[in-house]
Amino acid sequence: MKLLKVDTVNEARSKLADCCAGTMLQTEMRGLLDAAGCILAEDIYSKENIPPYRRSIMDGYAVRSRDLGAAGDMIPTMLKVKGEVLLGSDSSDLNVEPGCCVYVPTGGYVPDGADSVVMIEYCEAFGAGMLAVSKSASPGENVVQVGEDISEGVMLLPKGRKLRPQDLGVLAACGVTEIPVFAPWKVTVISTGDELVSPDRTPGPGQIRDINTYTIASRSIAEGFDVVRTVYVKDERDAIVNALETAKADSDLVVMSGGSSQGKKDMTAELIEGAADHGVLTHGIAAKPGKPTITGFDRKSRTLFIGLPGHPAAALMVYEQILIELWRKMTCLEKERTVRAQINVNIPSAPGRMTSQLVRLRGEDSPVAEPVFARSGMISPVSEADGYFVMTENQEGIRPGDMVDVHLWK
Amino acid sequence: MKLLKVDTVNEARSKLADCCAGTMLQTEMRGLLDAAGCILAEDIYSKENIPPYRRSIMDGYAVRSRDLGAAGDMIPTMLKVKGEVLLGSDSSDLNVEPGCCVYVPTGGYVPDGADSVVMIEYCEAFGAGMLAVSKSASPGENVVQVGEDISEGVMLLPKGRKLRPQDLGVLAACGVTEIPVFAPWKVTVISTGDELVSPDRTPGPGQIRDINTYTIASRSIAEGFDVVRTVYVKDERDAIVNALETAKADSDLVVMSGGSSQGKKDMTAELIEGAADHGVLTHGIAAKPGKPTITGFDRKSRTLFIGLPGHPAAALMVYEQILIELWRKMTCLEKERTVRAQINVNIPSAPGRMTSQLVRLRGEDSPVAEPVFARSGMISPVSEADGYFVMTENQEGIRPGDMVDVHLWK
Repeated sequence: MKLLKVDTVNEARSKLADCCAGTMLQTEMRGLLDAAGCILAEDIYSKENIPPYRRSIMDGYAVRSRDLGAAGDMIPTMLKVKGEVLLGSDSSDLNVEPGCCVYVPTGGYVPDGADSVVMIEYCEAFGAGMLAVSKSASPGENVVQVGEDISEGVMLLPKGRKLRPQDLGVLAACGVTEIPVFAPWKVTVISTGDELVSPDRTPGPGQIRDINTYTIASRSIAEGFDVVRTVYVKDERDAIVNALETAKADSDLVVMSGGSSQGKKDMTAELIEGAADHGVLTHGIAAKPGKPTITGFDRKSRTLFIGLPGHPAAALMVYEQILIELWRKMTCLEKERTVRAQINVNIPSAPGRMTSQLVRLRGEDSPVAEPVFARSGMISPVSEADGYFVMTENQEGIRPGDMVDVHLWK
Repeated sequence: MKLLKVDTVNEARSKLADCCAGTMLQTEMRGLLDAAGCILAEDIYSKENIPPYRRSIMDGYAVRSRDLGAAGDMIPTMLKVKGEVLLGSDSSDLNVEPGCCVYVPTGGYVPDGADSVVMIEYCEAFGAGMLAVSKSASPGENVVQVGEDISEGVMLLPKGRKLRPQDLGVLAACGVTEIPVFAPWKVTVISTGDELVSPDRTPGPGQIRDINTYTIASRSIAEGFDVVRTVYVKDERDAIVNALETAKADSDLVVMSGGSSQGKKDMTAELIEGAADHGVLTHGIAAKPGKPTITGFDRKSRTLFIGLPGHPAAALMVYEQILIELWRKMTCLEKERTVRAQINVNIPSAPGRMTSQLVRLRGEDSPVAEPVFARSGMISPVSEADGYFVMTENQEGIRPGDMVDVHLWK
């Protein structure tokens, strides 16, 4: 039996990160809707004040508050109506002189001279362009000041923000319509194995349906990656070499999943060694699940390779913890919120290996994480689980009452 | 001033739900990758046992555990090697007789007669097809039993599950490749307003950039809806009527956002009344933000209409709480997890109206929700916030120390 030095998950990720530095992260410009869900590649600053002019938040009359004094129900103040602000029209020549007022709709420009807006409910029109106002006003009332929403020069959004609808709203408001985002990685997913059949077929004796193609491709899409192709190839050296070469030509990331038997693991390592001019970086990781994991890098074509364990649950977990996490760290993605939950049972760790434990969450106020146990190769527990928590290499397991941070599944 | 009876948010949603019942939810069949992120329209049951045959979780030898007795380092047991299971080949004619064993790779078929698998590390080949095994075995060791992962007849996934990568894995494992999901709503987003300019233009005096098109469209896409088109129209009756008629022809949902002035609100209501044969259902809701909200339904074309407040933050919040929530309830979507957080300040509610308060979350173990205050019409606070919590119509506000459930923004 060949003995290999395995890496911790962090070591495996660091080795890939070192190779990636400066080459694997490209910035591209996208329009507003195309940038939704993408990750900002730069801090974005406002070049403008929003609103650029004082704006009313009510339908009403722009007034000089001093004019209204103690106006009230009993003793209204009479003002002269000098005009009307129309939405979308230039009203900057209007001016509210003492004793005067101007009609302003919600969102409308508040003319110079005025310092507040009285709601239309407190105003009554009289003949001869006069208005009775039955309420006093304080300076600034119902008026949004210039730059009160967003002032010129402030940071709107930080690098690493995954753009949500309201973030696009802020960018639209400030006229930022060419948005620098990290170009999503292009991914090829290769599944190998003579025993695999397509999910729409009934497996014969000794056969099994291909699962990893679907979990890995959809997880990639959920993270915003661009899945270029999914390929199934038999365990034939030439066929796999061809698939790897095709993938190198247009993919940033090639994800292989093959069998978990020793012979297959050795072949995957050998083929990645052949395809990647920088060679194999990691051969085996100290993680449970996930030991048989192989990574490599091709400098010339700028392609990352990862050979995942064959078991679907392990493959998904390793993909999450090495590749997805690498992408998140490289793009400075804002930290995902975990759920702090209590464990009520003993859970052993695998000594010397990082252990990922599937859990189901129960309860709202003080959530409890119930472990979901999965034997090697089983898929249903992953689907039953809400997420997982991690015990580090040196941690000795969990005792009842311990708190853990649960990463929710995407 | 026209007085209108306003609905609570729940009433507004119920009225729409009544109209929708039986018409607005269609099921469609999708393939595995196309179903990612969609919502299951039916409970899915397994028609098979997974694994369909006993499977080894190790590279090793299938044995009869009784044969090994007290085998150990010092006194290995000798077994006769009767053959080898090959992945992907039919090995069902192999049989492990007393005193015999068969090589099985990880994931391979465990032949009849054998009841456990000994890891290859404990086995040493001798001449003449004999194997020395230096470890005893317990029945079932390293063997996954038939149906142990998934047994025939069990529910795999419930109606209302938003399909995650691992859920697709379970479906692939069981050969479910035509998946009944709810057809995503087709949405037309219409923005109206003479004062609006496209975000790539610099607004002149009295003008403002269009924000709602981008927040509402991207929020729709994030929920899985299919945005058919986004349209901007001036405040011209005929142009809006045309846009509504075009939208009715191919959309399930027409979202209008116009100005917030009283004149515009009246026009929106009148135009929805004209386009929707079932008329206007709700005209104003008891919610802060969100009062000027109008809904309607057209029976003939099966189209929902909603006129949102003009202010971007209010528009997004109302869209979330009425339309997105309606979709989630109708599709039985599994409840989204909220974050339980403490409030450390006084927060007033709006008496008689449901109040949504934006918050930023701080801290991991015992999260604190800091209110983010937004004046009417401001967009930046929504982007600063991590989410929001809701105070009901009858709630009197929040006191320091109170706990709230924070809905995280999508």
